[in-house]
Amino acid sequence: MKLGMVGLGKMGANLVLNLLDHKHKVVAFDVNDEAVKKIEGEGATGAHSLQELIENLSKPRIVWMMVPAGEITESVIEKLLTYMEADDILIDGGNAFYKDSLRRADEAKKKGIHYFDVGTSGGMEGARHGACMMIGGDESVFKTIEPIFQDINVEKGYLYTGAVGSGHFLKMVHNGIEYGMMQAIAEGFDVLEKSEFDYDFEGVARVWNHGSVIRSWLVELMERAFSKDPKLSNIRGIMNSSGEGKWTLETALDLQVPTPVIALSLIMRYRSLEDDTFTGKVVAALRNEFGGHAVEKN
Amino acid sequence: MKLGMVGLGKMGANLVLNLLDHKHKVVAFDVNDEAVKKIEGEGATGAHSLQELIENLSKPRIVWMMVPAGEITESVIEKLLTYMEADDILIDGGNAFYKDSLRRADEAKKKGIHYFDVGTSGGMEGARHGACMMIGGDESVFKTIEPIFQDINVEKGYLYTGAVGSGHFLKMVHNGIEYGMMQAIAEGFDVLEKSEFDYDFEGVARVWNHGSVIRSWLVELMERAFSKDPKLSNIRGIMNSSGEGKWTLETALDLQVPTPVIALSLIMRYRSLEDDTFTGKVVAALRNEFGGHAVEKN
Amino acid sequence: MKLGMVGLGKMGANLVLNLLDHKHKVVAFDVNDEAVKKIEGEGATGAHSLQELIENLSKPRIVWMMVPAGEITESVIEKLLTYMEADDILIDGGNAFYKDSLRRADEAKKKGIHYFDVGTSGGMEGARHGACMMIGGDESVFKTIEPIFQDINVEKGYLYTGAVGSGHFLKMVHNGIEYGMMQAIAEGFDVLEKSEFDYDFEGVARVWNHGSVIRSWLVELMERAFSKDPKLSNIRGIMNSSGEGKWTLETALDLQVPTPVIALSLIMRYRSLEDDTFTGKVVAALRNEFGGHAVEKN
Amino acid sequence: MKLGMVGLGKMGANLVLNLLDHKHKVVAFDVNDEAVKKIEGEGATGAHSLQELIENLSKPRIVWMMVPAGEITESVIEKLLTYMEADDILIDGGNAFYKDSLRRADEAKKKGIHYFDVGTSGGMEGARHGACMMIGGDESVFKTIEPIFQDINVEKGYLYTGAVGSGHFLKMVHNGIEYGMMQAIAEGFDVLEKSEFDYDFEGVARVWNHGSVIRSWLVELMERAFSKDPKLSNIRGIMNSSGEGKWTLETALDLQVPTPVIALSLIMRYRSLEDDTFTGKVVAALRNEFGGHAVEKN
Repeated sequence: MKLGMVGLGKMGANLVLNLLDHKHKVVAFDVNDEAVKKIEGEGATGAHSLQELIENLSKPRIVWMMVPAGEITESVIEKLLTYMEADDILIDGGNAFYKDSLRRADEAKKKGIHYFDVGTSGGMEGARHGACMMIGGDESVFKTIEPIFQDINVEKGYLYTGAVGSGHFLKMVHNGIEYGMMQAIAEGFDVLEKSEFDYDFEGVARVWNHGSVIRSWLVELMERAFSKDPKLSNIRGIMNSSGEGKWTLETALDLQVPTPVIALSLIMRYRSLEDDTFTGKVVAALRNEFGGHAVEKN
Repeated sequence: MKLGMVGLGKMGANLVLNLLDHKHKVVAFDVNDEAVKKIEGEGATGAHSLQELIENLSKPRIVWMMVPAGEITESVIEKLLTYMEADDILIDGGNAFYKDSLRRADEAKKKGIHYFDVGTSGGMEGARHGACMMIGGDESVFKTIEPIFQDINVEKGYLYTGAVGSGHFLKMVHNGIEYGMMQAIAEGFDVLEKSEFDYDFEGVARVWNHGSVIRSWLVELMERAFSKDPKLSNIRGIMNSSGEGKWTLETALDLQVPTPVIALSLIMRYRSLEDDTFTGKVVAALRNEFGGHAVEKN
Repeated sequence: MKLGMVGLGKMGANLVLNLLDHKHKVVAFDVNDEAVKKIEGEGATGAHSLQELIENLSKPRIVWMMVPAGEITESVIEKLLTYMEADDILIDGGNAFYKDSLRRADEAKKKGIHYFDVGTSGGMEGARHGACMMIGGDESVFKTIEPIFQDINVEKGYLYTGAVGSGHFLKMVHNGIEYGMMQAIAEGFDVLEKSEFDYDFEGVARVWNHGSVIRSWLVELMERAFSKDPKLSNIRGIMNSSGEGKWTLETALDLQVPTPVIALSLIMRYRSLEDDTFTGKVVAALRNEFGGHAVEKN
Repeated sequence: MKLGMVGLGKMGANLVLNLLDHKHKVVAFDVNDEAVKKIEGEGATGAHSLQELIENLSKPRIVWMMVPAGEITESVIEKLLTYMEADDILIDGGNAFYKDSLRRADEAKKKGIHYFDVGTSGGMEGARHGACMMIGGDESVFKTIEPIFQDINVEKGYLYTGAVGSGHFLKMVHNGIEYGMMQAIAEGFDVLEKSEFDYDFEGVARVWNHGSVIRSWLVELMERAFSKDPKLSNIRGIMNSSGEGKWTLETALDLQVPTPVIALSLIMRYRSLEDDTFTGKVVAALRNEFGGHAVEKN
């Protein structure tokens, strides 16, 4: 098939390579000219504007977006919807908040454009060689684009998840689980690190991946990370986050679902961003006031 | 090799079958005669007392224990140490608390007996067809029994972890991580279940296992569970626990390692054991006292 | 002074009585005619519509709203703004989310109306005999209404908190702290209740209120609650919530402030609303799959 | 009455002054000679050894210990029990773990000595001018020493809590609640500190203490702390702990009482002791491995 790709960052560029591997034709655009030039070198057709991208596709057009969540997605979709026409298909493969996707799907529908929200997991490697995709949107239209998903994902690695919004919702929850798993693994290694024993962490990760209950890709990745830096001594423990964990928690709160582990995983990430905390100052001040416990001075 | 197996429950019996598959000779004992009879039918030599088991082994003897943690392990080891002699090898493959293992290893050492604490993960399937084992004890003695571990575990599925105690410690932390991962996965499905979308949970578990960041054996097991009971409607959400999560948290507290996710995973298990809580009564009473908010009556 | 009161529920009615005690004149309205009739009997002037209430006040009018957060506040303010005029003063004493208050203050400002967001704490007793009020809005206009706050609150029981929005924000955070304190107290009593000792809870609450570090109004209220029902056996442990704790947590997440205790206080309230959980079912199913642990059937 | 005081630290010395105020006679000992000299200057009889202290009391002797929990308490009691005789009364007013107190009471009982475990709250001010005491031990013997508790505590500020152990157990739980309350208050101020508003924290603490639901001694202490250092800029947010919170959590785990807020209060204290965390390093490494997210280097 022929389709357009908007966004050639880590995920988008790898997806294009993946599509090309499977003999799809791709018209690719990014605001960064270098990225466009580079992907042209790989066999894609470069476009230098959204409009040019649209003009290079034939109707009904298929456009796949892989751009950062938030304002960028918003403005790209807004523009695409002005260029696209009835029966065209717009796929948002980024990490949008599902409520935004629901709203955007409504906007698209007004013009007769079919909107699909596709949650993508598997990191860069997945994008390149086979990811996991969760796809919400109109089921009958989905049939027409299903071959693409069959090609670019690992076997059984895509799922039509139901109505529009359900793809991004599912990906959001996937990431919430990911936060919890990562924090659990990390806490475990922290206990090992502070224990009286002297573990070979790479060996630990390896053995846990061979036969144990917690075998998983994340533990595999820890083996890889420890193979490069056995005590992670070059890495600062700053845990950034890009929104999906927060969305999961906010959604859980709206639905009144008790998600303490996802909540704490996120909260500990925020905690890691601070060197000192006002919370700590207040508790230290209180202990000093009632018990005369010494405070450490700045 | 020839070795003794004490304890023929779910794990022990499967381990014996696994050992027999690999041409080891096993003398097997359990307090339950039926279990002994059954394992004899599979090719093991049955023993009807610990003493008989010891007498059926030649020196230096290798005895593997696979009995429940706590009092039973305590009393079995006590008796075994009276029958065993210098240079014999005692392997505790159960889920003992590592401080108990340190103490027991000391007792064994007084008699010249080599004690190994072996943490075993992989469930019944692992015990049967290849588990993951974490082994603490004397390194040079370990070399003599290493072939057994090579045979009965999956490839790369065992690790000599260092000094005595380190095997059970590592298994304990493994289980702490397991608690966190399980709770994370469970919270995620709970959010899905309460969402506005109508997911096919079996399909969700399947797609998450093909290419996603959270692919793992636990998610595989969820696919299997949902294939039997799509909404788990036959299962009550009572989360029992058998001690390792608690030990992990207690150890983390002793070491002052912040493990909020492991802590909450355990705490939510305890919460699941109660239909109503006194905590809830107190909060409801307070809201009634200061705000006149109605309480629900028993 | 003369002012209008909109909303004669638990809080509003008590506030009117409090104002009347201090010789203020109150025109009072509620959608519930009975409530209006009742308050007329106490000395207020009843109004049967918002318009009538406004007509009974002289310019610049002071109108105090004490209505439930959300849609009701929204529609009341919308109507009031059509009747009120430049230089009038609109006080929202309810539990509105501060972002809504910021928006509403903007709307009011377009018409030259001064909007104050007043967080009120102290429960019904406070409303009646002296509460604690946190007041955001224009500082110079505040001076003109300050005598009212001086009269109806306990000594030192009001604070001009700064720009519009800061009153409701502060009240929100107050409630977040309240959630945490309540849960902490409740957990403590739960530990006592399950302990091997046989405590007199009323006595415990009393002694804690006389000289201890945790002496507080909430513990006083527990003494009162236990005096009525020594083991709270008539109360179900269902912990409802009315939004402020959730707003505090959501705001903390937006500001990336780690608030684990406030988070868990809220999450445990949600947990208390469920008899059984899907989270629990998933964990029980997993334990059954990998370890053969029995599940309890529905 | 006449009694002995062992331990003249912050709490013990203030208790002696308090006892002297109420016309009790005190024989006082501390390993620190300066402390003994100082208290002699206040009217107590100094003793330079435990033996001397005992010899200065007439039978049945009353000895009050106010020494740090753990090894010191252990060794002091051991010695005292060798000097004391049947019908003497030994009061442990420190923060001992209740299981230790149960064991010590047993030891005392063998010699016919009456042991009382007294939990003391109220900080130094309380010790000096009236604290809150929770007293476990033999009820009939308690009657004979009750006048002391009546004198030195605030009105209604002592409670006979039941069997031996119940006093320290109750104090332990009190401190668990204290941890939760402190963390809740601290989180709230942290949200305020990071908000868009510019609050006068001293004013906030003051107004919260006048009529609000969260009015409490702890909030009073915050007013005092902010009056000295309006933004606590001189204090580092290091939250030490002295054991009672940990005991409460460990006890809750043993009793399977879900105490998430107490757990998190303690865990965040531990977190505050670290500048960087291994947990954070693991999560950062994982994000880098699967998503190519940059890590911050050391």
